[in-house]
Amino acid sequence: MTTHSFSRRTFLATVASAAAAPALARAGDALATLAPSAQTSATEDWKDAGVIDLSKSPYAKLKTVPIRAVVIEEGFWSKRRRTNVESSIPSMHDELIAHGRMNNFLRLIGKSSAPQVGPVYSDSDIYKWTEAVGFCLQSGDQPALRETTKAMIDEVVASQEPGGYLNTYFVGDRKPLRMLYPTQETGHELYCMGHMLQASIAYYRATGDSELLDAGIRFIDDFLLPSYGPAPNQKGIVAGHPEIEMALIELYRTTGNRRYLDLAGYILHGDPRIPLRSQQIVYMFCGIPFTSRTRLEGHAVRAMYACCGATDYYLETGDAAYWQTLNRLWNDLTQHQIYVTGGVGAREAGEAFGDPYELPNARAYGESCAAIGNMMWNWRMLAASGEARFADVVERALYNGINSGMSLDGTTYCYRNPLAFDPTGDSADRHTPEGKIRNPWYDTTCCPPNLERTFASLPGYFYSTSSEGVYVHLYDNSTMSWRLLDGNGLRIQQRTNYPWEGDVKLTVTPASPAEFTVFVRIPGWSARNAVKVNGNSLAGAQPGEYLAIRRRWSTNDTIDLSFDMSVQPLRANPAVNDDRGRIAFQRGPIVFCMEKLDQPDQAGNMSEYIARPGVAGSSVFKAELLQGVMVLDQPGMVSAPTVNRGLYFPVTESEHPDQTPTTLKLIPYYAWANRAPSSMQVWVPYTNV
Amino acid sequence: MTTHSFSRRTFLATVASAAAAPALARAGDALATLAPSAQTSATEDWKDAGVIDLSKSPYAKLKTVPIRAVVIEEGFWSKRRRTNVESSIPSMHDELIAHGRMNNFLRLIGKSSAPQVGPVYSDSDIYKWTEAVGFCLQSGDQPALRETTKAMIDEVVASQEPGGYLNTYFVGDRKPLRMLYPTQETGHELYCMGHMLQASIAYYRATGDSELLDAGIRFIDDFLLPSYGPAPNQKGIVAGHPEIEMALIELYRTTGNRRYLDLAGYILHGDPRIPLRSQQIVYMFCGIPFTSRTRLEGHAVRAMYACCGATDYYLETGDAAYWQTLNRLWNDLTQHQIYVTGGVGAREAGEAFGDPYELPNARAYGESCAAIGNMMWNWRMLAASGEARFADVVERALYNGINSGMSLDGTTYCYRNPLAFDPTGDSADRHTPEGKIRNPWYDTTCCPPNLERTFASLPGYFYSTSSEGVYVHLYDNSTMSWRLLDGNGLRIQQRTNYPWEGDVKLTVTPASPAEFTVFVRIPGWSARNAVKVNGNSLAGAQPGEYLAIRRRWSTNDTIDLSFDMSVQPLRANPAVNDDRGRIAFQRGPIVFCMEKLDQPDQAGNMSEYIARPGVAGSSVFKAELLQGVMVLDQPGMVSAPTVNRGLYFPVTESEHPDQTPTTLKLIPYYAWANRAPSSMQVWVPYTNV
Repeated sequence: MTTHSFSRRTFLATVASAAAAPALARAGDALATLAPSAQTSATEDWKDAGVIDLSKSPYAKLKTVPIRAVVIEEGFWSKRRRTNVESSIPSMHDELIAHGRMNNFLRLIGKSSAPQVGPVYSDSDIYKWTEAVGFCLQSGDQPALRETTKAMIDEVVASQEPGGYLNTYFVGDRKPLRMLYPTQETGHELYCMGHMLQASIAYYRATGDSELLDAGIRFIDDFLLPSYGPAPNQKGIVAGHPEIEMALIELYRTTGNRRYLDLAGYILHGDPRIPLRSQQIVYMFCGIPFTSRTRLEGHAVRAMYACCGATDYYLETGDAAYWQTLNRLWNDLTQHQIYVTGGVGAREAGEAFGDPYELPNARAYGESCAAIGNMMWNWRMLAASGEARFADVVERALYNGINSGMSLDGTTYCYRNPLAFDPTGDSADRHTPEGKIRNPWYDTTCCPPNLERTFASLPGYFYSTSSEGVYVHLYDNSTMSWRLLDGNGLRIQQRTNYPWEGDVKLTVTPASPAEFTVFVRIPGWSARNAVKVNGNSLAGAQPGEYLAIRRRWSTNDTIDLSFDMSVQPLRANPAVNDDRGRIAFQRGPIVFCMEKLDQPDQAGNMSEYIARPGVAGSSVFKAELLQGVMVLDQPGMVSAPTVNRGLYFPVTESEHPDQTPTTLKLIPYYAWANRAPSSMQVWVPYTNV
Repeated sequence: MTTHSFSRRTFLATVASAAAAPALARAGDALATLAPSAQTSATEDWKDAGVIDLSKSPYAKLKTVPIRAVVIEEGFWSKRRRTNVESSIPSMHDELIAHGRMNNFLRLIGKSSAPQVGPVYSDSDIYKWTEAVGFCLQSGDQPALRETTKAMIDEVVASQEPGGYLNTYFVGDRKPLRMLYPTQETGHELYCMGHMLQASIAYYRATGDSELLDAGIRFIDDFLLPSYGPAPNQKGIVAGHPEIEMALIELYRTTGNRRYLDLAGYILHGDPRIPLRSQQIVYMFCGIPFTSRTRLEGHAVRAMYACCGATDYYLETGDAAYWQTLNRLWNDLTQHQIYVTGGVGAREAGEAFGDPYELPNARAYGESCAAIGNMMWNWRMLAASGEARFADVVERALYNGINSGMSLDGTTYCYRNPLAFDPTGDSADRHTPEGKIRNPWYDTTCCPPNLERTFASLPGYFYSTSSEGVYVHLYDNSTMSWRLLDGNGLRIQQRTNYPWEGDVKLTVTPASPAEFTVFVRIPGWSARNAVKVNGNSLAGAQPGEYLAIRRRWSTNDTIDLSFDMSVQPLRANPAVNDDRGRIAFQRGPIVFCMEKLDQPDQAGNMSEYIARPGVAGSSVFKAELLQGVMVLDQPGMVSAPTVNRGLYFPVTESEHPDQTPTTLKLIPYYAWANRAPSSMQVWVPYTNV
């Protein structure tokens, strides 16, 4: 273990200095030459790929922009991303080491005598962390982090068997179980393989170093492809936990080898030779033709990853049946299944989607990974269509149900992201042995590195290009230095206090003046909008659509956007039993919640706080609170303690007697549970009085 | 198996003729001599015991009245009890045989070569069914049923080992596991033992036949008492699933052997030599001093049975700490944990109590056994105190959350009793492999025979005696022929259409005119009441109290009770998230529900039906519907389909747009799911307009 036993302090210091923006700024400066296409020589194609590489995908209306092409500057996301690189990624590294996840590899090469530890999918923890590092390094080199990771990659690759197989769980006595049916359903071998491929591609796109990628290709070419697939001499294959589909398609995009795409399609179709019970088909969201799916069900992360893979398949093949199914599932998502926070997965049992409108708050599962899967899927749907409804879901999940998953200090994580919480209730602590909603480690530690890779890849989600021009999806202080599809260099600078304020100034600078379209996203939540180009008002902005601004652009043209940042009390569909008689507060993309510790009146039960949505409140930015958040002061009431009342009483008795005025204090949902344990609710009881 | 292979048809015919009331009427006639004390010779003490025998319990303010002393005549409960004896008990017998539950015993005596089948607690199924038969025979002999049961008892007893041990699971290879720690926690040996004792006592009190009782005593005396208990030479003991406590105490009451009471007390105290994790202590509701409990938690049936045993212990010992704890737990029950149907147990996970106010409707567990345990516990609390608040809970559970557990035809049973249901949702069917809410058999078939024993013992819950006179707890056409504690014979006849109508006429006939008190229960739900004695109004009736009518009673004195049968819309405490914005309808003791199939407007989602509690409805008795039920016609509205609306929308949009008037049709909750599968809800959204 000496390889990885560098001092945490040293590591942090190195990372911190790298992260303190000079590296990032350098990337931006370099691109400021406005000749980015000249930078990428034929041998450095890897530098041009985005979070996923849609540059050659025939059915991708939008093309991804490299992470390195977008520098996020001081603002909302810079804090999160600095925390990610300074705190989360290094501390998760130490957790992975401490919990023996690297030892699992080292024992295979004689460098450790510790036994295999962790669940069957433990290798994926290492890969997801490596992918996070890969995305991170795409924003600028960090030598210490890169070298640490490279050393780990060396050891991972060293543990690969000559036949290409690489999985630290199915070795020794368990070797005969490899890809054996029915172990295949639950063994997560393809899941780990998928994360290995994604990690290898992210690291390759950061560094051009293909060591892990080559190992991944050997794994697929030498082990998987020869033996598993539709041919009579091949064995049956089932994803078990979808993930391999999107990984194989990204490998196809990276290498051009169509066999990877075909195998992904075969897995998405479901292998008829693998007999599955109907419960498994529901739970695993695989094993039958993806195009036969009519609703989201079963394990939420599995379903979301399957949808990602299926959308990737559509982006490459244009198979209309896939697009039809994906839209049917998306309607189910947005009509019945998504939390207002963008989280998904209502049920703890099976970590699963519930029935339509089954969206409990305190008992919400809303796994961080599922919200991330939701964002990844919608990102792909957006690329396929250019439709802003998908970007709205990306934004909702990102700012709320994903952002909540990592503590503000970056060292603890939510696995579940409930929309109501009572730290004194036993439902608060029965989900984790530690009894806390945020923990530094889970034995199934899927969420922490998943959050890390998401924040590390964030610059790649800001823009897309298309045959018509450029799309602006997300808003924050940033500079994009990239090129249009015709090769003309383009810089777009954003200046804003988004998401706290609704004004965004874009400065558009093409390398050569040219006519093209800038598609600016008008968020679905923004009812009233104003758009100006070089100071002149422009009509036509519609909430939930891209406003296409086509003109001849030249240096320092400006677009001024002004979104509606009024507080929006939301109601849920009456079929959502758990939200009846309650409202949620949203302001801009941010969903708010009440933490009891902020309230001037300390009610006994959160249901004693009553909102008055008809009475206007105010918003105040508090720089010193929770790393700087907008706080909503909403006029409300606090009623008599519920504890003094019977469980059932005649309807003639007031539901909320003895109301006295109070001010409800709401903070962004993503920032909850970062102070002392406190009751929390997103959906607040309300009165129309 | 030839012993039990009698024809179902013959069996039914015999039972039916026995049940067609002559046998029951005979019992009544005999008691009409008004000298019941003369009937019970010294050798027939067993005839005097009630559901439990509190005749010598020093801290029982109320004494039980024998089941045989009360004949329930044609009315509400007669149908249920006829179904129980004509359909449920015989069909459950056949199910038990078909599922090998008797084979488990027969193989031990060489009469079957089939392997052991069923879960570890399978013997209890046979015992609980036998107990149901015992209670049944206490209402009058039924030779075929008695002979069938006697033959089964012969075989059960024949399978007892010379050392007294009797459990068909822990034999052969499993013999070394007997009462072994930690098998003791999960092995249900003491649970099965408890049900054996209860069955043996019920059968003995029916017939005077002590064969099974003697076997039970041998089991305790020869196997349990010598080896398990507090002495240094004894081994540790933990109930695992409470049940043995109340059984041992009933054995103490039956035999007078105080060692049984002491052992029950020791188990209730928790054996410090048995190390339990805190989760086990919560889940099993045993293992620590009962008097240290502060809330209901964990497995609901376990908790309720533990409370039964603890109350039994108090009734015998008067231990004030027990009474204090029991009242604390009762307050938790009624303030935080009980469903409006009297059911308990909010969570499927662990079949458990939830947090305070955690009372989901569709996801309610509400196991039939837990509602029964709740009734049994409150029956004991009532005996200890004479306070009507406990009788109110007995009635609520009995008429609603228990009565719902058996189908109207008596052949299928609910394990769960949810308060909302959608047969198209997958939460409808994930609880049973059959996908139905009512099933003829469950592999854990605890509920069906539990329901059968409850309905069979029902006459024993109608009355109690005390030093002051007699208590009337329940109302239905019936004749009690028993005696006061001073030995004076007493007959009370009830004439009523309760629970459909609120008038009850009691005719009180003492053997000799005498001064004593008739305590008539004024139900807690009855806001306005009228009481007349021999036609003269009597003041002082208070809801939720017994009205004490002390006077000199003589032949054919009458009491006319008139309860408030207006429809009562109920609201839940605002802290119950799942009931917010909803009301439930209660009329008399009956809680109502909406089944979609009854509604004139077939809404897409149950939440589209909106009640208007401010507008009076009407009640109509429909004799042909569901074996005769009151139907509520409540003015209401039906709104635009929720499916056409977004999941979230601004609060300025109406929650229920496009309302059109309709009439909501409500049926008694107990009768739901007796026709075609249909959506159901107890708690109905409402508007104040």
